[in-house]
Amino acid sequence: MPAPRPAPDPRDAIGVLGGLGPYAGLDLVRAIFDETHAHADQEHLPVALLSYPGRIPDRSTWIHDHTAPSPVPPMLDVLRKLDDAGCAVAGIPCNTAHAPALFDLLRGYLAADGRDIRLLHIVDAIVARVQEVAPEAETVGVLATDSSIANRLHEIGLEAAGMHAVVPLAEVQREVQASIFDPSWGLKAFSHPPKPKAREVLLRATEHLIERGAEAVILGCTELPLAIPEAVHDASGVPFVSSTRALARALIRETHPAKLRPLT
Amino acid sequence: MPAPRPAPDPRDAIGVLGGLGPYAGLDLVRAIFDETHAHADQEHLPVALLSYPGRIPDRSTWIHDHTAPSPVPPMLDVLRKLDDAGCAVAGIPCNTAHAPALFDLLRGYLAADGRDIRLLHIVDAIVARVQEVAPEAETVGVLATDSSIANRLHEIGLEAAGMHAVVPLAEVQREVQASIFDPSWGLKAFSHPPKPKAREVLLRATEHLIERGAEAVILGCTELPLAIPEAVHDASGVPFVSSTRALARALIRETHPAKLRPLT
Repeated sequence: MPAPRPAPDPRDAIGVLGGLGPYAGLDLVRAIFDETHAHADQEHLPVALLSYPGRIPDRSTWIHDHTAPSPVPPMLDVLRKLDDAGCAVAGIPCNTAHAPALFDLLRGYLAADGRDIRLLHIVDAIVARVQEVAPEAETVGVLATDSSIANRLHEIGLEAAGMHAVVPLAEVQREVQASIFDPSWGLKAFSHPPKPKAREVLLRATEHLIERGAEAVILGCTELPLAIPEAVHDASGVPFVSSTRALARALIRETHPAKLRPLT
Repeated sequence: MPAPRPAPDPRDAIGVLGGLGPYAGLDLVRAIFDETHAHADQEHLPVALLSYPGRIPDRSTWIHDHTAPSPVPPMLDVLRKLDDAGCAVAGIPCNTAHAPALFDLLRGYLAADGRDIRLLHIVDAIVARVQEVAPEAETVGVLATDSSIANRLHEIGLEAAGMHAVVPLAEVQREVQASIFDPSWGLKAFSHPPKPKAREVLLRATEHLIERGAEAVILGCTELPLAIPEAVHDASGVPFVSSTRALARALIRETHPAKLRPLT
């Protein structure tokens, strides 16, 4: 019984390097589906999610201490597998992993490997999304991990686009970091559903950033939209910019622009 | 800059042949995460989802008319890609695709191809789950597509395990089929969120099956748990058996039994 072969691979799939964490990867795939203009199964875009969390050591730890186990070889292995599965582009639903010390290495190795897959940068996607939802904004708040804040990951991107970033003061940042990593109530341990405390802390931090002048607030860690799914801060009307949704839209725009849902 | 290589692939990932439909595939991945005993990113299981809906023609149509475009070559291609991505097992979150005319062909071609990946059967998983949640049940209701009902897909599996199946009478079955496929309110077109009408129709059909003696009701199409996420029918206490959750548990049990969450 000779196994049939389909037509050659069109190489138009969207790849997701998941597992960082698992639910954030899932949330990105859902955002890709939600942001696609489709009315039947067959109209949805080809998406590959590889979520191999046990193989990928913590990114923050390695970024700050290169003697710790490196996430680079296993992340590169997943990107190669996505390339093999016919993906034209890939996104990493983890803001922290976009620190130059890690992200630039991944892009460099992919190029050295002769791989065609295009790895998009989440901060480029976020800045584009800020300009869509808050085109007048001059000052933009950032909620993110200690690692991303220390690296000025989002700040540098905003400044390059002519905007100014505000980040939480130290005692508020400690709470934001805990809302992600605390083993008893943080989003890494409890994301489905999140603990109410994580949402409360993040809404308080949002108000703190608005007091400091933020005209839009970036949810600059892919765990954060799991606790704050809404598009706008209820009391102030200040828009939230989900890094997950921003990356989803960038991945669609890059591969199938005609399928991108209009801005809602 | 030589690209680093990680340790050899452990071949312990769970593969999902998604896209049938896209949200049902996503729902299976979420069920795998939810049914895993894990408290940190790194404790979650390796999962690969390939959702290429545009490449896979409608299964029901081909099962009943082999001159229609065949889903077999593209489904086989996805299974090969999952095998290449290090998957030990694969599941197909689409009950209809488990009709012998299609499923047996996929398993046969994989074997002929010398592929190691083990393709689990969703009905085996469902029957095992019925025996977990309703060990005393003799009569089990089935909600499924016209195609699965006509093929007696779930009935044959239940009978082999010593149970008796009840299916909806023709006029109720017409409504069930519409709740999945109707382009203006069915789950294939509106699953996130589902239209209230789809849920109402399915709850009425459930009550109809309970009147006909059902002691448990199988949600035997992976779109159905998107409209009926609860574990038990509220008014009667009769358990629902989600084919999605059943398949998720079978995939975990097959690869990482120690990580399977206890029955809740």
